[in-house]
Amino acid sequence: MTIRFLALGALPLLLSTAVMAASPKPPALETVADLALEKDALAWDFVEGITTEVGPRQAGTEAEARGRAWAVQWLRANGFQNIAVEPYTMPTWVRGEERAEITAPFAQPMRVTALGTSASTGEAGLAAEVVYFSSYADLQAAPAGSLAGKIAFISHDMKPTQDGSGYGFAGPARWTGPSLAASKGAVAAVIRSIGTENHRTPHTGGTTFAAGVTPIPAGALSNPDADNLERMFARRGERPVTMKLTLTPRSLGETDSGNVVAEITGRDPKLPPVLLACHLDSWDLGTGAIDDGAGCAIIAAAAKQVALGGRPLRTVRVLFAGAEETGLWGSKAYAAAHKGDAIYAGLESDFGADRIWRLDTNFTKTDPVLYRQLALAVARFGVAPSQEVATGGADLNLARESGAAILDLQQDGTHYFDLHHTPDDTLDKIDPAALRQNVAVWTQVVGILANRAEPIVQGK
Amino acid sequence: MTIRFLALGALPLLLSTAVMAASPKPPALETVADLALEKDALAWDFVEGITTEVGPRQAGTEAEARGRAWAVQWLRANGFQNIAVEPYTMPTWVRGEERAEITAPFAQPMRVTALGTSASTGEAGLAAEVVYFSSYADLQAAPAGSLAGKIAFISHDMKPTQDGSGYGFAGPARWTGPSLAASKGAVAAVIRSIGTENHRTPHTGGTTFAAGVTPIPAGALSNPDADNLERMFARRGERPVTMKLTLTPRSLGETDSGNVVAEITGRDPKLPPVLLACHLDSWDLGTGAIDDGAGCAIIAAAAKQVALGGRPLRTVRVLFAGAEETGLWGSKAYAAAHKGDAIYAGLESDFGADRIWRLDTNFTKTDPVLYRQLALAVARFGVAPSQEVATGGADLNLARESGAAILDLQQDGTHYFDLHHTPDDTLDKIDPAALRQNVAVWTQVVGILANRAEPIVQGK
Repeated sequence: MTIRFLALGALPLLLSTAVMAASPKPPALETVADLALEKDALAWDFVEGITTEVGPRQAGTEAEARGRAWAVQWLRANGFQNIAVEPYTMPTWVRGEERAEITAPFAQPMRVTALGTSASTGEAGLAAEVVYFSSYADLQAAPAGSLAGKIAFISHDMKPTQDGSGYGFAGPARWTGPSLAASKGAVAAVIRSIGTENHRTPHTGGTTFAAGVTPIPAGALSNPDADNLERMFARRGERPVTMKLTLTPRSLGETDSGNVVAEITGRDPKLPPVLLACHLDSWDLGTGAIDDGAGCAIIAAAAKQVALGGRPLRTVRVLFAGAEETGLWGSKAYAAAHKGDAIYAGLESDFGADRIWRLDTNFTKTDPVLYRQLALAVARFGVAPSQEVATGGADLNLARESGAAILDLQQDGTHYFDLHHTPDDTLDKIDPAALRQNVAVWTQVVGILANRAEPIVQGK
Repeated sequence: MTIRFLALGALPLLLSTAVMAASPKPPALETVADLALEKDALAWDFVEGITTEVGPRQAGTEAEARGRAWAVQWLRANGFQNIAVEPYTMPTWVRGEERAEITAPFAQPMRVTALGTSASTGEAGLAAEVVYFSSYADLQAAPAGSLAGKIAFISHDMKPTQDGSGYGFAGPARWTGPSLAASKGAVAAVIRSIGTENHRTPHTGGTTFAAGVTPIPAGALSNPDADNLERMFARRGERPVTMKLTLTPRSLGETDSGNVVAEITGRDPKLPPVLLACHLDSWDLGTGAIDDGAGCAIIAAAAKQVALGGRPLRTVRVLFAGAEETGLWGSKAYAAAHKGDAIYAGLESDFGADRIWRLDTNFTKTDPVLYRQLALAVARFGVAPSQEVATGGADLNLARESGAAILDLQQDGTHYFDLHHTPDDTLDKIDPAALRQNVAVWTQVVGILANRAEPIVQGK
């Protein structure tokens, strides 16, 4: 493998990187990571396979179960060990019919999708006057009872950001906007999609009704529809804007779900493992390519790439969590089932398939030697160091609760919310070269961690 | 107005263009066109208005009638003369439910939309094995009877081209592919969308069943779904691929439609008028912004801009044709109703709202003096001369049949088929600056034609 690598003319890179590194590393790992950048086919095989042969994998449904079966077969075919499905149950909500139309003063249909946990309007639908709020703050300012009998339209809009921070700004409109509207008397709520593109593919996602608030029908309009509805408010004069909304989702009660786990077993099984997480479920509208087929593809490919560099010192465990989208049920179940397990370090991939641009950890200041080693090792892939404190993804509950080191290999999220939770979350949106860069960076980082005996120094 | 123009620092442009022009033109026209480029608000007002206040305007429906009423009101408010609705009737087909799912070997839903004149599967849907054709030629090569009981999947794909020629290459898959499949026994046909983007918004459009061929259910899959189905065929091994297809469109029989006409009357009403055409109807999925709200906006704004330069010598007539999408019913009715009318020149805008890049006419060689005058007059807007022979748009039947001069102000179509006949044909896709460039070029060209006394020299 070294000979092949040298034949590719990458020797200067290898040498200079070795010189730059703060502590010695097995050259084989760098070679493996560089080859992954050039030609990893494992991650693509995973994400092409699961999106083609399974497609949407909504939590708690038979489609998610088919996703687990598919993943087990893939892991087996690729030589993973200790493959297991760890079952649990969870409350399941499924989409029904969804239609919206403005009935006056400018009659025309709108594209809408129900938000997870939305109540049903019933088959007959619901017709009411629409009240417009340009932001979540405006809705907050509405007097108690002022929305009685009305449909709240919350048009809080989202801007793309590389680090995904726009989701924190705009997300509340979906997460708690419908509950807030209901608390002021609204009979239904429609939000502007929490998304950054202008296609007529509304973004679904979960919404939460506060204790004591009766759930109402809640949907997202696509961004072009939200634009159109805003223009209607600008042109209506004194006329009321009325909407007919039909959303017929229903609850299936408790259904079966499960986590899929597998390992590349280490040379010393007594040492705490490195935990790599993603989620296997997806929303139902797309095929779960970027959210989060790509994440599972990246971590599984990286685990196997690390093994290609020789059996690692520590076990590398992959967790394909179930039911992330609808309430982190898989992550919670995994943390409960493995309570007390020691984890050396936890990392999650759940932000699409664009390039990794920054390395965050929760030991940057407390273990600067390790942080420096990692940062230098991934610099050649275009990954920058940072002082940000990693908090880990949704499926790392066990890692967080056990006090493990946490690393966030931050992906460029500028375009992630163009696709997030839409029908457009499909394979064609993934750039194979960017996917390979992810695998290379993960291989490099996980390889270093899995071959490291020393504990990671953490604060507190 | 000249003073205002000079204050903007455009004097050198004005002078140099005047020097370049082959024959003298009223400076007022150039000033008007330059100001249109900078600040025309009429075209935007039209297309924003009709997409917001009416939205989809499918031929033969009450929505198209609302579109006519809206247009009449807009024309009246903007000072047009001789405004009239010219009614006719036409056969009308409307969409019903539409669902597709692959049932084996890789069960998952697909996004589909019915093609115009598709038969219905009935509410219960239709399940059958899918036969894959990568091109129209492959379907042509299939033996007679070979598709008995099968669903034909025609995956002929389209590439973007600036001049729209990709539509000629890929279009037959939609126009006649389902009829061809039916003639070989197919019980239904699904095509890859005739479109150039990768969103899960399938492209509708008309299909035609040949005489003697019984119509079958026919739909278009979105491009990502067609990609996915192709991958399924690559991964299925020996297993059959089966689909459940539900399309429930229906015929409404003959319904009312109409053309809207209006004029800027010329100083000499005896001279044949300049005819500017577009179509007012749209497919039902989008809001008819680029197809063809923008076209009507451009021609109406240009007609009014010409009038701002002084009452033209010839009448400028605008024709907002009805029912273009479903069979050019409006254009045919207009040509029949006005048979024998002389038309000086005919121009249509029906290719979106991107910039005009080329001037084609059918008198380029026979009246080189006029062609050169026009070409020089629009060069400053980035419009190139060409030797292509203009044939005119779908709504110019009368102009063609009466032997009028024809001009095609060719728009850049590179992105047109990203949106064409999809739900994504919405206002946000229009670049206001590109729309103004259209109005400026049209103002310049129509202004020259409408103020020209001499006949146009044509061959044959």
